Amino acid sequence: MKLTQISKTKAFGGWHYQYSHQANTTQCTMRFAIYLPPQADEKCKVPVVYWLSGLTCTDENFMQKSGALKMAAELGVAIVAPDTSPRGEGVPDDENADYDFGLGAGFYVNATQPPWQKNYQMYDYVLTELPALVEQHFPLTDKRAIAGHSMGGHGALVLALRNPEKFVSVSAFSPICNPVNAPWGKKAFSNYLGENSEDWLQYDASYLMRNAKQAIPALVHQGSDDNFLAEQLMPAALVNAAESSCYPLHFAQEDGYDHSYYFIASFIEQHLSFHKQHLQLP
Amino acid sequence: MKLTQISKTKAFGGWHYQYSHQANTTQCTMRFAIYLPPQADEKCKVPVVYWLSGLTCTDENFMQKSGALKMAAELGVAIVAPDTSPRGEGVPDDENADYDFGLGAGFYVNATQPPWQKNYQMYDYVLTELPALVEQHFPLTDKRAIAGHSMGGHGALVLALRNPEKFVSVSAFSPICNPVNAPWGKKAFSNYLGENSEDWLQYDASYLMRNAKQAIPALVHQGSDDNFLAEQLMPAALVNAAESSCYPLHFAQEDGYDHSYYFIASFIEQHLSFHKQHLQLP
Repeated sequence: MKLTQISKTKAFGGWHYQYSHQANTTQCTMRFAIYLPPQADEKCKVPVVYWLSGLTCTDENFMQKSGALKMAAELGVAIVAPDTSPRGEGVPDDENADYDFGLGAGFYVNATQPPWQKNYQMYDYVLTELPALVEQHFPLTDKRAIAGHSMGGHGALVLALRNPEKFVSVSAFSPICNPVNAPWGKKAFSNYLGENSEDWLQYDASYLMRNAKQAIPALVHQGSDDNFLAEQLMPAALVNAAESSCYPLHFAQEDGYDHSYYFIASFIEQHLSFHKQHLQLP
Repeated sequence: MKLTQISKTKAFGGWHYQYSHQANTTQCTMRFAIYLPPQADEKCKVPVVYWLSGLTCTDENFMQKSGALKMAAELGVAIVAPDTSPRGEGVPDDENADYDFGLGAGFYVNATQPPWQKNYQMYDYVLTELPALVEQHFPLTDKRAIAGHSMGGHGALVLALRNPEKFVSVSAFSPICNPVNAPWGKKAFSNYLGENSEDWLQYDASYLMRNAKQAIPALVHQGSDDNFLAEQLMPAALVNAAESSCYPLHFAQEDGYDHSYYFIASFIEQHLSFHKQHLQLP
């Protein structure tokens, strides 16, 4: 698997890179970003936090706006940030180019419906293809945590809940907790997965947490002044599911914060500290 | 003077705001951002760091990408970030809409030449109108530091060197140190100020530092892998000027860093710590 370097930038003593590669899962050229802390070199592998971004984002938003790189450099943990959908010539988009479906809105599912099913295989891309690729090319251990924001918070929770052997811990900011009951989720899932809503449940964090057989530690932060809180995010469904299955979820509602990266930046160090414990960092 | 609130976002326990207002100096609607740390309230005024951004930026780049808000909240210092030029209907732009002149490229000068002289009065806007406005509307002391990046580093140095009574300290990342000898500066100054290069010297940090009668502490960081280093930035001219006039400049070249916000983020806490001393923060 061949990588093409797009950018290389020093940050906090480590290096931020962007790469593109031809992906088998999504059958298009995918771009991702990786931050390698100063501790990472040929002799020293470091663990990794995968970050899944929200609607309209690319690999760039978290790296530029979260303020996470400073603590990643201190802790000695890598960050990998994929794009939020397949892109490029021939990849279909929402017919109205809406922000909440199609390009920039892959929802971390494997689409089954035409015309989406050829490229929109973000679940497999993030779960399997991307980790194999970065672990082949960079000094990374197989200790992985996963985190995300909004649509990416949904993605992180779903990937972790379905694959607890693959990740040591999961965290999310403002996740779409119950997409099968939310307008964003209904629009995406009916198009990507078809009209049978039974097929959607495998991508619903609240359903998965309620039925979890094996658990990894989970942390969720939600701002109380988030415009999308009641209609789209529905954290009460996740909290109820965790109570029902005794899932180790720590849920924190933060007074006055909204859905923006200022919220993420304000609490990202709490998330990295949380993952640090489970990644067994010193 | 009336302010219109555009956004209000909680960050690190304080508040990030964007406002617009009708400016007398630039005769157009100007937007700026202000971060008020949690310590600021009606009973407690806080000092302020003005941040001047570089080419193509607005009030948003520094607030979103620098990672400065965390330490500003810890220190109890406000940050004010103006736009980089006048904007809006009737404000002239470069005939080719080039990134390095016109909109997004006001160079912090008072233009004297048509058609620029009506709106492109960014020197007076940043020096006088904006501080009066924010000190009227927000709980700010009259202790001010000033900092900036690239074109904004040039602006910060020029404003501080010409007005040492107005600022307690100045810092810059990758500033345009000697614009009278650099392509960006020559293009901007010949258009804004006319062809007589004697008129440009009042906006040249190296000339001003060489001839400074009164000094405030200055800190400059420059990345060694900055694409613009030799042709546009010319820090050696500033270092030579400081040696010539015994100006209290601390210049730090940082190996491997480029011109991006990843460089700023990597060292912004050193700049805020530097200003903290001179703002007499605890």
